[in-house]
Amino acid sequence: MITSFASDNTAGASKEIIQAMIDANEGYAIPYALDEYSQQSDTIFSKIFGDVTVCYTLSGTGANVVALKAMLRPWQGVICADVSHINTEESGAPEVITGSKLLPVPSCNGKVRIADMEKYLADKNSFHKVSPKVVSITQSTEKGTLYTIDEIKEICAFAHENDLLVHMDGSRIANAVVSLGCDIKVITRDAGVDVLSFGGAKNGLVFGEAVVFFNKELSRDYMTMRKQSLQLISKMRFVSAQFNRFFKDDLWLQNARHSNGMAQYLAQELQKNHALTVQKPFVNAVFVRMNKALIQKLSQEFYFYVTDTEKNEVRFMCSFQTAKEEIDYLVQRINLLSK
Amino acid sequence: MITSFASDNTAGASKEIIQAMIDANEGYAIPYALDEYSQQSDTIFSKIFGDVTVCYTLSGTGANVVALKAMLRPWQGVICADVSHINTEESGAPEVITGSKLLPVPSCNGKVRIADMEKYLADKNSFHKVSPKVVSITQSTEKGTLYTIDEIKEICAFAHENDLLVHMDGSRIANAVVSLGCDIKVITRDAGVDVLSFGGAKNGLVFGEAVVFFNKELSRDYMTMRKQSLQLISKMRFVSAQFNRFFKDDLWLQNARHSNGMAQYLAQELQKNHALTVQKPFVNAVFVRMNKALIQKLSQEFYFYVTDTEKNEVRFMCSFQTAKEEIDYLVQRINLLSK
Amino acid sequence: MITSFASDNTAGASKEIIQAMIDANEGYAIPYALDEYSQQSDTIFSKIFGDVTVCYTLSGTGANVVALKAMLRPWQGVICADVSHINTEESGAPEVITGSKLLPVPSCNGKVRIADMEKYLADKNSFHKVSPKVVSITQSTEKGTLYTIDEIKEICAFAHENDLLVHMDGSRIANAVVSLGCDIKVITRDAGVDVLSFGGAKNGLVFGEAVVFFNKELSRDYMTMRKQSLQLISKMRFVSAQFNRFFKDDLWLQNARHSNGMAQYLAQELQKNHALTVQKPFVNAVFVRMNKALIQKLSQEFYFYVTDTEKNEVRFMCSFQTAKEEIDYLVQRINLLSK
Amino acid sequence: MITSFASDNTAGASKEIIQAMIDANEGYAIPYALDEYSQQSDTIFSKIFGDVTVCYTLSGTGANVVALKAMLRPWQGVICADVSHINTEESGAPEVITGSKLLPVPSCNGKVRIADMEKYLADKNSFHKVSPKVVSITQSTEKGTLYTIDEIKEICAFAHENDLLVHMDGSRIANAVVSLGCDIKVITRDAGVDVLSFGGAKNGLVFGEAVVFFNKELSRDYMTMRKQSLQLISKMRFVSAQFNRFFKDDLWLQNARHSNGMAQYLAQELQKNHALTVQKPFVNAVFVRMNKALIQKLSQEFYFYVTDTEKNEVRFMCSFQTAKEEIDYLVQRINLLSK
Repeated sequence: MITSFASDNTAGASKEIIQAMIDANEGYAIPYALDEYSQQSDTIFSKIFGDVTVCYTLSGTGANVVALKAMLRPWQGVICADVSHINTEESGAPEVITGSKLLPVPSCNGKVRIADMEKYLADKNSFHKVSPKVVSITQSTEKGTLYTIDEIKEICAFAHENDLLVHMDGSRIANAVVSLGCDIKVITRDAGVDVLSFGGAKNGLVFGEAVVFFNKELSRDYMTMRKQSLQLISKMRFVSAQFNRFFKDDLWLQNARHSNGMAQYLAQELQKNHALTVQKPFVNAVFVRMNKALIQKLSQEFYFYVTDTEKNEVRFMCSFQTAKEEIDYLVQRINLLSK
Repeated sequence: MITSFASDNTAGASKEIIQAMIDANEGYAIPYALDEYSQQSDTIFSKIFGDVTVCYTLSGTGANVVALKAMLRPWQGVICADVSHINTEESGAPEVITGSKLLPVPSCNGKVRIADMEKYLADKNSFHKVSPKVVSITQSTEKGTLYTIDEIKEICAFAHENDLLVHMDGSRIANAVVSLGCDIKVITRDAGVDVLSFGGAKNGLVFGEAVVFFNKELSRDYMTMRKQSLQLISKMRFVSAQFNRFFKDDLWLQNARHSNGMAQYLAQELQKNHALTVQKPFVNAVFVRMNKALIQKLSQEFYFYVTDTEKNEVRFMCSFQTAKEEIDYLVQRINLLSK
Repeated sequence: MITSFASDNTAGASKEIIQAMIDANEGYAIPYALDEYSQQSDTIFSKIFGDVTVCYTLSGTGANVVALKAMLRPWQGVICADVSHINTEESGAPEVITGSKLLPVPSCNGKVRIADMEKYLADKNSFHKVSPKVVSITQSTEKGTLYTIDEIKEICAFAHENDLLVHMDGSRIANAVVSLGCDIKVITRDAGVDVLSFGGAKNGLVFGEAVVFFNKELSRDYMTMRKQSLQLISKMRFVSAQFNRFFKDDLWLQNARHSNGMAQYLAQELQKNHALTVQKPFVNAVFVRMNKALIQKLSQEFYFYVTDTEKNEVRFMCSFQTAKEEIDYLVQRINLLSK
Repeated sequence: MITSFASDNTAGASKEIIQAMIDANEGYAIPYALDEYSQQSDTIFSKIFGDVTVCYTLSGTGANVVALKAMLRPWQGVICADVSHINTEESGAPEVITGSKLLPVPSCNGKVRIADMEKYLADKNSFHKVSPKVVSITQSTEKGTLYTIDEIKEICAFAHENDLLVHMDGSRIANAVVSLGCDIKVITRDAGVDVLSFGGAKNGLVFGEAVVFFNKELSRDYMTMRKQSLQLISKMRFVSAQFNRFFKDDLWLQNARHSNGMAQYLAQELQKNHALTVQKPFVNAVFVRMNKALIQKLSQEFYFYVTDTEKNEVRFMCSFQTAKEEIDYLVQRINLLSK
């Protein structure tokens, strides 16, 4: 069973990242993120984003939970897309660990709309209701789409006008940056985002994410919060060393550029097959509609997700590791099986 | 500042472990602990312990929290030593994530006594009280001591007679096994322990611990529990690959034997200095009393913990990585500074 | 400002209930629900429902939370209507106190449909998802509608086939019983409900609700759970004494019959006014559409809720205390103001 | 079995309080504490304490939990006496509902000492530790003793110097006020207390307590917090009406004066019996040591608590309702049985 297109997390880690971990294994280091690697990593983040507090975490869910916990009291809620990762793929961790309720709005191509969020604003005045305090958006979205810079700015402006904070789940932020062709600061801090979950594992790290607090007031107790949220290992140097390498020579952007490019190539090749309806990829996911029989046959050989059982839509994901030959083979099998 | 004796977590990882991670980086793998490395690792654990469920986690605190969460409803409590890691070093994570209360008893050399636990038994009959449900003991203890096999058996018998479950925090279980010279199964499952937190990071892993459920009924929902407790990364193969190597050629026991041995050597060398009162080490920690002035001077050069400010007791820890030369240098400096 | 139609909780308590509290004030009583009044009350509940465990609570939200807490582990979720009280009016108490996530389905006239619940069943197999464990339905619903006996049976059968438990929020169960003209046991225990929140305050009590466990296994630790959920006062005799009187001479049914009847009368009178669109009431709420100007004017004199701002729908509620004259006055004012 | 001396909560409510509830039952009222009774009650509290926010709650545990929840983030802890009600008698509600950890210190006659609290201050600098944020003291204490005004001032000064807030559990504050012979403001707000749980039920209310926020900033979201903490009933007028009567003619002080006086009388009568060792009562609890055989015999007739099984110490409590004749009978039986 070929698993390479199931997700961008079936890949391993970039060779450079592994090498950075090997290098970080030299000698002794102060534990719990007080080491030199972490200081260096902090400096890099501040070069990219300006003055920020960075909290390295172990998993993407962990990053989102620490971010939200810092932003919320337990009687406050999080407006988010119904399809958002925090709402559907984190086993209720945001609720159980922050104590807060998620307030889902219908999504359109994975994105939230201001009109839908407005209906929760009245809840701020009712003590029978969870009071919305955070808007959480995912960039790029769970549906492989992108918020434009203007859309992010509008959402942030709406949020701040209404005393809401903005969290961005950026587990695939690198893919978004590459696709939008802009500086990461422009679509995060400059657009008004307060706290960013900066993704690592889906883009070539072994593990490790970073919560970037643009609003430093929110980060005041982040070290205790991280420990309490089970996101602290003793040998944190192995996390920050990965980040240091990630930013060197723009590896994080190279990786994202590669996975986005492979998705473009895959889409382009699949479009030649008229039995398929291929959605133009924004980032590294390719959504394809095909007939049910083909899905059946293909799933004997490849591990992938059916994202819409009614429309017979499936998803193929490319990663930093995807090789052109792997795509060619997938396309060849699809073409053969669809005859 | 020399940090090597501050804790066994200032060390890096065993070279063999790093190599195992490099090897695990080949190709693609199913994410979330459903990969072949994890299956292999499960098999090894079952060879050691008999039929068990193993839940790999990211941190020691994470392992303890997942273990306790599986054993408890929120109105049930955990009898533990006042000095236990769960009570003092985990930022309240056990309480906030399981919802349960810890019920501390005074410790004697880091160990709990049955007589002290008995006072909580009456609480089982009062709905105004948290109902004790778990006894948690640490092996080897936070004070560098050991429960004997008989002591563990007695505690487990007491617990089970009173409808309590037994959790063992084994973040340094390897050091205990080596010191007691027994099979690990003998001091855990065979002695009556229900759930074990099996330590990795303090004994040479980059990161990674394992919750071993001897009582498999308790593990029923462990996969959702782990995810919800933020202990799941996508590329779990990098955790289980470490464990696979850990058990190969008994590396875990070799590492522990080395760190215990280095502690023996350090104690023996320090005993020659009559300005010091050296406690005989059971595992890899050496507790030494020295005068305040010496502590002051030494702390200019070495990073270590003062474990008792009244008795001027300090702790030096050895790790799998500790070299004889490092100890010789430490001893030399102490001898010089104590003159 | 006339507040009588705002809700059935703007009324006071039945005079008989107040008298029962006066009577209960004699002498001393064992605190914390171990008194004779509570024993008597338990007996009455068992006469009505068969062998049950009853947990008296202080508020309706408290009853729902205790019920759900007994039925759930923190990684399990509750399928409920999007408009359900637990989802929209309890300030996130179900989430923050049970730790569990609510899994809302679209409601149709306030009711859940099996087809909508089915989509959550797949989540039982994914450890990334909260695992559905309870279906919670409200009878009568937040929209003033009723589940038929057959509908409840179908939902319960569906639930049990899929290893789900059924909770019924019966804050207005008496109104439902009266309207359906059936025995309460028929639409609860006999239909398959596992745990019922039996309402008191909305039907003439000063305060007090009762969680009725048909599935007694679930109630095992209810006394500690109640205390921990802040639903225990010392002088619980004042709660159970109310229930004892509530059931005497079927006061609870008389009260509900009165409020339902008043709603019928109000609807009938309002239907004569052609400027209004009046929904036939099932229980004690009357939903009426009227033009915006009328709503504006009426709200200067009466305190009531606009339940749909787009459709200009408002709600008038009748209680056990509502007098025919109050309705006549309301109708008179509406007629006058709508000219 | 005579239950009158078991606790001050085996009594009923003052007749005046019951009458106030009867009176409050007239007509309709806006629900959820927005009624006129609650406004009136707020005014009274502000006359007593100056500008404050008052949050009426249903139970004493509820009051403490709402108070603490307002003062804490989940990674912050509460320094309290080991014997404090929040630590031993609230089923873990403070932990599970606030998420915070209690940090107990040894108590001396029920009171905390500054020296013992100091050991937790260092934890403020460690992210592995719960960070102390609140000191909670009980006045009068669980051991029937009193903090003097100076002791409270010292504790508050210590707390504020160390960035800690002070909570006072005043479930028996009236008894303390009467015994100290001072104004209540003097031992609470003026002494530096930030938030007070003002007790009702133990001093003659049917039910109802009040969280008094001197530090109004802390009360910002108290209405949502109260609802979420299950402390809100719809007909809150029945709570505030009790408080209104409680303060009229100083009923609350009269009640406390009576119960304290009865305890004085009981102690004085018992002191005549040389088989007993009677502790001088500060408030309304009398602690007596007697031989085991007497305890046995007495417990056949009276329901009371053995507060120290080693010292054979028992507790008799007097309430606003205790009659001289009841005491005379108790003394008579003790004298007879002790022969």
